[in-house]
Amino acid sequence: MNLPAKVDIREVCLRDGLQIEAPISLSAKVELLDAIVATGVREVEATAFVSPSKVPALADAAELAQELHRYRASHDVEFSALVASPNGAKRAIAAGLDSIEYVVSASDAHSRANVGRDTAEATTAIADVTRIAHDSGARVEVIIATAWDCPFDGPTDPQRVLDIAAAAVELGVDRIAIADTIGTTTPLRVSTLIEAIRPIVDGLPLGAHFHNTRGAGLASAFAAVQAGITRLDASIGGLGGCPFAPGASGNIATEDLVYLLRDSNIDTDVDLDAAIAAARIAQRAVGHDLPSALLRAGDRIAG
Amino acid sequence: MNLPAKVDIREVCLRDGLQIEAPISLSAKVELLDAIVATGVREVEATAFVSPSKVPALADAAELAQELHRYRASHDVEFSALVASPNGAKRAIAAGLDSIEYVVSASDAHSRANVGRDTAEATTAIADVTRIAHDSGARVEVIIATAWDCPFDGPTDPQRVLDIAAAAVELGVDRIAIADTIGTTTPLRVSTLIEAIRPIVDGLPLGAHFHNTRGAGLASAFAAVQAGITRLDASIGGLGGCPFAPGASGNIATEDLVYLLRDSNIDTDVDLDAAIAAARIAQRAVGHDLPSALLRAGDRIAG
Repeated sequence: MNLPAKVDIREVCLRDGLQIEAPISLSAKVELLDAIVATGVREVEATAFVSPSKVPALADAAELAQELHRYRASHDVEFSALVASPNGAKRAIAAGLDSIEYVVSASDAHSRANVGRDTAEATTAIADVTRIAHDSGARVEVIIATAWDCPFDGPTDPQRVLDIAAAAVELGVDRIAIADTIGTTTPLRVSTLIEAIRPIVDGLPLGAHFHNTRGAGLASAFAAVQAGITRLDASIGGLGGCPFAPGASGNIATEDLVYLLRDSNIDTDVDLDAAIAAARIAQRAVGHDLPSALLRAGDRIAG
Repeated sequence: MNLPAKVDIREVCLRDGLQIEAPISLSAKVELLDAIVATGVREVEATAFVSPSKVPALADAAELAQELHRYRASHDVEFSALVASPNGAKRAIAAGLDSIEYVVSASDAHSRANVGRDTAEATTAIADVTRIAHDSGARVEVIIATAWDCPFDGPTDPQRVLDIAAAAVELGVDRIAIADTIGTTTPLRVSTLIEAIRPIVDGLPLGAHFHNTRGAGLASAFAAVQAGITRLDASIGGLGGCPFAPGASGNIATEDLVYLLRDSNIDTDVDLDAAIAAARIAQRAVGHDLPSALLRAGDRIAG
């Protein structure tokens, strides 16, 4: 197997993980944030600047952003926020974020359900989002959602994904990611799309985001790594799901991913025991069992 | 990706799936067997001839074996039973089975917990089991348990696995399989062991058996397929676990595996909708939720 020595994980528990949950308090989020920073992870998507009425669990985005400052002096962590419009980008920048993810759905129906615009309109807005970010010195990543399947439109034509990626490169974004929003993809499909998109994003960091809805999340993530991806999103406890994508469920669990990568001789910066401890905190915060396997079974090596 | 056109699945729900559960009635097993045969799967491990006091859920092995005859005329399915000793092999043959799996644990502590003998003694007994099977025209497979890790002894020295495989070949068995009894392995470890064992089993069919205890079951199964394995065990609903291996949990779910392989252009003979229907029956039979992802989320393509 041809594997990299290192994979960078972006922790999305506080955004993708919490967005489908009943709102939890800011202090519960800060406790979880402390536990996440303690895992050693270097990138954290901390919240989203989206409609508070559509995603009430993240309505405290500006308040949470204030909490991030206290980690900046002592920890080498990059915090980011997801946005779905130029207006969201403005709010994120105003709140002090210097790294944003702008999501563009590759399928029109999901794009309309998610942000009220079709794919073409959302793609056009990459220009405004990028200008807003770059004018303030912030970094912008385009996340291409429903990159394999849409809950409404069915399988996504890969050319739509490639067209968004090409537009994002043309419009000067700093990074690109492809997201399996509803957890339907599988290793061969992952590998095929990555091979197709790689020449288009040439030179920019390319990440991938998987959900475990149909049990294939880790297999897909590992296929992505085998195809050369070294940036993966994951969520402590396997929390997660898109409120506007019926049937979506948890992201791949950070601790399950770290376990698999560790035993594949791939470093992640993330301490497995600390990730399991954070998952315990996440589970308590949301008040129900989480799908993480390591949270139940523990490491194979006695700690 | 270099993938095969076909993977043969052996359905182990009725054996590995049920052995850890409270006993269910023979008629419930027959209903599940009907549903399993209806999936199109060509190999079914139907029960085990082991100690009824240690595995009460399979105490009806001889009665279940009688039920298998009625499928023989109309379906092209190979039924088998697991045994743990020459005496178990005799009972299986006497009950009419013509295919048996004999399990040998690669770690002494699991071997002793499982069958009361260490690995060397269990390996020596391959000779008797094979003679008993072959004298009646039956086929025998050696399954090497705890091939990666033991719940008591920790990581298994791969040489112990290779030694059992070499002995099994020498003693004339018909097939060999390696089993991740406690669900700890991951893709690179899978690939490494398969590369090491392949020259030893040269010429004999080699299968693999995974549990999803740490979330990596499907990733490991796909790594096995990438490494050239075309025989995989799986369990409807993800039922399963070893009563003598603390922390073991469900096998990889047949329907989750079939979904992943189908979308990788790999045929399995198993109909996905029928497998999900069988998982529903299995869930009702045992009376609690099963870990299968497809059972909850359904196919990505509307049926």
